[in-house]
Amino acid sequence: MTKTLASATGIARLATGDADFDDRLDALLAWEGVSDAEIQGRVDEIIAAVKARGDAALVEYSNRFDRLSVASMAELTLGSARLEQAYRGLPAAQRDALAAAAERIRLYHARQKPESWHYTEADGTVLGQQVVPLDRAGIYVPGGKATYPSSVLMNAIPAHVAGVREIIMVVPMPDGVLNELVLAAAHLAGVDHVFTIGGAQAVAALAHGTETVPRVDKIVGPGNIYVATAKRAVFGRVGIDMIAGPSEILVVSDAGTPADWLAMDLFSQAEHDEDAQAILVSWDEAHLDAVEAAIERLLPTLEREAIVRESLAGRGALIHCRNRAEAVELINRIAPEHLELSVADPDSWLSEVRHAGAIFMGRYTAEALGDYCAGPNHVLPTSGTARFSSPLGVYDFQKRSSIIHCSSRGASELGKIASVLARGESLTAHARSAEYRIEER
Amino acid sequence: MTKTLASATGIARLATGDADFDDRLDALLAWEGVSDAEIQGRVDEIIAAVKARGDAALVEYSNRFDRLSVASMAELTLGSARLEQAYRGLPAAQRDALAAAAERIRLYHARQKPESWHYTEADGTVLGQQVVPLDRAGIYVPGGKATYPSSVLMNAIPAHVAGVREIIMVVPMPDGVLNELVLAAAHLAGVDHVFTIGGAQAVAALAHGTETVPRVDKIVGPGNIYVATAKRAVFGRVGIDMIAGPSEILVVSDAGTPADWLAMDLFSQAEHDEDAQAILVSWDEAHLDAVEAAIERLLPTLEREAIVRESLAGRGALIHCRNRAEAVELINRIAPEHLELSVADPDSWLSEVRHAGAIFMGRYTAEALGDYCAGPNHVLPTSGTARFSSPLGVYDFQKRSSIIHCSSRGASELGKIASVLARGESLTAHARSAEYRIEER
Repeated sequence: MTKTLASATGIARLATGDADFDDRLDALLAWEGVSDAEIQGRVDEIIAAVKARGDAALVEYSNRFDRLSVASMAELTLGSARLEQAYRGLPAAQRDALAAAAERIRLYHARQKPESWHYTEADGTVLGQQVVPLDRAGIYVPGGKATYPSSVLMNAIPAHVAGVREIIMVVPMPDGVLNELVLAAAHLAGVDHVFTIGGAQAVAALAHGTETVPRVDKIVGPGNIYVATAKRAVFGRVGIDMIAGPSEILVVSDAGTPADWLAMDLFSQAEHDEDAQAILVSWDEAHLDAVEAAIERLLPTLEREAIVRESLAGRGALIHCRNRAEAVELINRIAPEHLELSVADPDSWLSEVRHAGAIFMGRYTAEALGDYCAGPNHVLPTSGTARFSSPLGVYDFQKRSSIIHCSSRGASELGKIASVLARGESLTAHARSAEYRIEER
Repeated sequence: MTKTLASATGIARLATGDADFDDRLDALLAWEGVSDAEIQGRVDEIIAAVKARGDAALVEYSNRFDRLSVASMAELTLGSARLEQAYRGLPAAQRDALAAAAERIRLYHARQKPESWHYTEADGTVLGQQVVPLDRAGIYVPGGKATYPSSVLMNAIPAHVAGVREIIMVVPMPDGVLNELVLAAAHLAGVDHVFTIGGAQAVAALAHGTETVPRVDKIVGPGNIYVATAKRAVFGRVGIDMIAGPSEILVVSDAGTPADWLAMDLFSQAEHDEDAQAILVSWDEAHLDAVEAAIERLLPTLEREAIVRESLAGRGALIHCRNRAEAVELINRIAPEHLELSVADPDSWLSEVRHAGAIFMGRYTAEALGDYCAGPNHVLPTSGTARFSSPLGVYDFQKRSSIIHCSSRGASELGKIASVLARGESLTAHARSAEYRIEER
């Protein structure tokens, strides 16, 4: 029934004018990161074991799942000297790039730090909010092929800027392999301790504590379905960040950006994994054709061609809309993790964008710059959760306490109001507690 | 083995010097708000039914669980005229008290509102963060005996101050009974629509939307175990606030506050329900004796005596500590929802308090004043979650988007860094996307 057909590149072509556009877009965006009952059961079992047997369970699971043969947690613990050694051992170009990225991320996040505030009312009553860092944060870093030093910077630096007293990182060591860049990033980001454990067992250890692993107050960082399921299970006992879905980008182009640039921007999203989503929107059909031709021409030159092809064919799209207003509507409907406004005057769009994790403005701001070193965080709300969630930030590693300090006069006046309302709720001890503070009774 | 015995009031006496103090305190604080597999199964079933059959399922469940006999959602929908009518119909004293409380809450929360910010770097690159309200928020309000108009104010006003476009309230109507004060509070707080539905079915409707109930972006508000289980289940599809445990207070007294006042402050917490927790800490043993005597004397005068007795006997405590330092240690260990610093110079304590939902300072600031009308929110982190959570606030109804706008020069410099790091992660399409923006290649 659709008027447009998938091309040789496999990427879908949609148009807002198509009768079935809404259904096709919904199908394209649909994502259910479900953990079935079997995974749930295994995760519950792992959490119970770590809670009951601590380090011994961690050693057993690590030996089994990561194919190790360690005897104790001492062999799964890295001190700060080891992290610094990794940093010193890097080739100079990598060391400098990592340090430059860390510094830019630190500068941006320092601007983001909320401060305590208070104000005094006429009768002397003081109201306010005290902002305090968490005592201890846990950073989960995936092992194996998806080990990204940039993620270590993005997760740990906000915690460090917030003033968290102790930052614990966990990263599994499958087959005993460690990534030196990841350890170097941990050194730069201010991580205090690293345990080379992963999976649901690492989440359980951070949430409940073991003889070796200290219990943390919040766990952040991406992971596979076992990690996500475990985070959901311990939510409430500790804080967690959002449970992330596949990464996605929505690029809006006014046809003024070179087609090759846009094709590569889409690839940079699609190369993450087969579930990643890359969508381009434009009101210029010839431009969409040009980008599709660029995709076709450049695809064979990619190192991760197979992954990109599968991602584009399964979840990618080139969408033709009628005009700028429809493009804005699509942005807010999709609520993308990454939004690239590849247009002449991106500032004029900003007030209309209600939902997006990060907004990359203009032709020069490739998402890749934000992924690594522009400064803002690359941990962003996925799968439309930008409707209600924010980038990871300093605020995720702080919490607030309300401050109420009534003067005797203030308490007397407030007591009269509280008394009426408390009696309206039949909470008479509340009322009497307030009434004790009313003057001249 | 304990040296101290429960008194006639049933409240436990503990001392930090006791050999078994740590164990007894841990036992006292232990709280597992578990939802068992049976509840989980029933909630999953309800959510699936509402998702599949929408309004029809809502009508069926409301008829069954709330003992109604309505034919359609029209009978479970209240318009703004009905809310205003409830407000106009209140006795003047209640209307004025509610309006005064709403105004103070609004003033406090207006101070709390984070603003967008940005800065420009030397090469013209702009970085920042855009703060935007949610499109739509859902407020859950319990029905029956725990229907509190103050909770409507505390949940809805921050959403309204944040600028949320549409605020939906749900409140069950068991046996057809509505609370006029609750409706009046909804009118004052800026609620747009009220549906008289509750339980897991109301949470499901807010998360998924039905023909009548619009899908929201975030659900806040307290509820029973079914509501809490449903909120946990839809978390990720929509945002939720914390899953609350029983309410608690920790009062620290330097013996300068009248024993009767302190007894009533403890009662005001204990009268909420049998699981509520009220703890008093002091280094003056004679003062603890005096408060216990006041408890014994005042208990028979309470309307909710039975609930208070059970709460104090089961979860209350009078704790003798050695000195001020030990009191501070206890505060941070317990991380109380409500902390009352009933001492001569509470300001001097503030920098040492790391974990508390709200801090009530000095002899005049009864918790009850904060519960109703001081201004700060009364929705606070319970069960030690103040270690990582904050009071409900304007920030819960906003989200942030990162802004990155690179100048051509900025993109060129950042591109060099991103290229090195992306290649270090084997993400070569990222690298090439960045490299296109490097000048003079």
